[in-house]
Amino acid sequence: MKLDVIFSPVQADELFFTKRTTVVIDVLRASTTIVAALKNGAKEVVPVGTIEFAVKVSGGMFGGQTLLGGERNTKKIDGFALGNSPLEYTSEIVGGKTIVFYSTNGSRAIVKAKYSANLFICAFNNLRALATHLKKLNEDVTILCSGNNNFFSLDDSVCAGMLVSELVNEKKKVDLTDSSTGALTLFKSFGKNILKLLSESEHGKLLVNNGHKDDLKYCAELNNTDIVPFYSGNTLKVLR
Amino acid sequence: MKLDVIFSPVQADELFFTKRTTVVIDVLRASTTIVAALKNGAKEVVPVGTIEFAVKVSGGMFGGQTLLGGERNTKKIDGFALGNSPLEYTSEIVGGKTIVFYSTNGSRAIVKAKYSANLFICAFNNLRALATHLKKLNEDVTILCSGNNNFFSLDDSVCAGMLVSELVNEKKKVDLTDSSTGALTLFKSFGKNILKLLSESEHGKLLVNNGHKDDLKYCAELNNTDIVPFYSGNTLKVLR
Repeated sequence: MKLDVIFSPVQADELFFTKRTTVVIDVLRASTTIVAALKNGAKEVVPVGTIEFAVKVSGGMFGGQTLLGGERNTKKIDGFALGNSPLEYTSEIVGGKTIVFYSTNGSRAIVKAKYSANLFICAFNNLRALATHLKKLNEDVTILCSGNNNFFSLDDSVCAGMLVSELVNEKKKVDLTDSSTGALTLFKSFGKNILKLLSESEHGKLLVNNGHKDDLKYCAELNNTDIVPFYSGNTLKVLR
Repeated sequence: MKLDVIFSPVQADELFFTKRTTVVIDVLRASTTIVAALKNGAKEVVPVGTIEFAVKVSGGMFGGQTLLGGERNTKKIDGFALGNSPLEYTSEIVGGKTIVFYSTNGSRAIVKAKYSANLFICAFNNLRALATHLKKLNEDVTILCSGNNNFFSLDDSVCAGMLVSELVNEKKKVDLTDSSTGALTLFKSFGKNILKLLSESEHGKLLVNNGHKDDLKYCAELNNTDIVPFYSGNTLKVLR
């Protein structure tokens, strides 16, 4: 098993992901929110690459049972029912619904990786469940950090490193690249206190300044669910 | 002083660098080779973004005193006088000469950052001399890792982290971003044995397989010169 980490979606093009097993991470907050939505009974999450496409898709295809969710640069989008706080995606609100989801970094990273043979979503909330599945799958894994407007994000990278750490703790031989070695090292330095890591990250500070301190606490919860979101036919559903 | 690190040139566009103080790093081997060329008496190094442009420039403007140097994917380019090994750039060969230089990652990173207000080249060989100059300059610094075909390179990142470390060890307040925090952490983990780091990096292994083991030893030498290459008027010269 070979593990690679990509620290920003801009480092690879769509065709790069063809036939790969890919894991997309956007701890603050898209991947955490997607996991929360599915955990709380959303039928599916449809990640989209543009706001215009979100509006277009939500109007037609899913007749009445659709909610628009997401953010642009940490702010809720006009006309969207939901923002990008995982705390908004309660079972009362999302149960049985299709969520059409756009976010500045996360949903665009997922769309970029759409040609993957297997495409999963990872947050701290579901990390071990995903690791368990990846061990069974036993394929090479590319971990794609959504980053921060094309730049490096420490929270995503440490989460990637934690996933590498889970997969390395196996008896099987695991090959690491420069980037997965780096991510693993960052996890070893910053992984002991995830809430502190999130609070001191650039994006975490911005969220706290915008009144989302409680989101950070939720995003820092480790393995609070066994949900593994899996991408198939343009939507994310719970892997059964 | 704010310190930022960009792990791949593809993460920013040319205009991003306008008015910035930028440091380009390509330890294996372009930045090491450029430092070596200038240390050994080359008049200047002209970094170019394409091989075609290298050939065009070398034919006309510099009448007879020009050498073509560089590589494409670690291999010497047909018709070029020099490859990308710093050991080739001896004073006998490069003394007084203009070197038109192309490499897969390094020269393209330099060209990308050409609109910087101040643009310097860093290798392990000249790291402290550059740090001393940057302390005097007292500007925010963007450290651009040339990376590996758009991907993350551990050797460049650790070198960036060592430069961050030198600048942080000051009395003045230094602001770090997610990426400069990450690079500093990688330096603390891998910076104690630079030759080992280079030997175990993806690009280092490739170079050893291609017969360039001695290059790694040279690239790992710490502070063997006070040369600081500075970019001005499309060429790199020694900062006086």
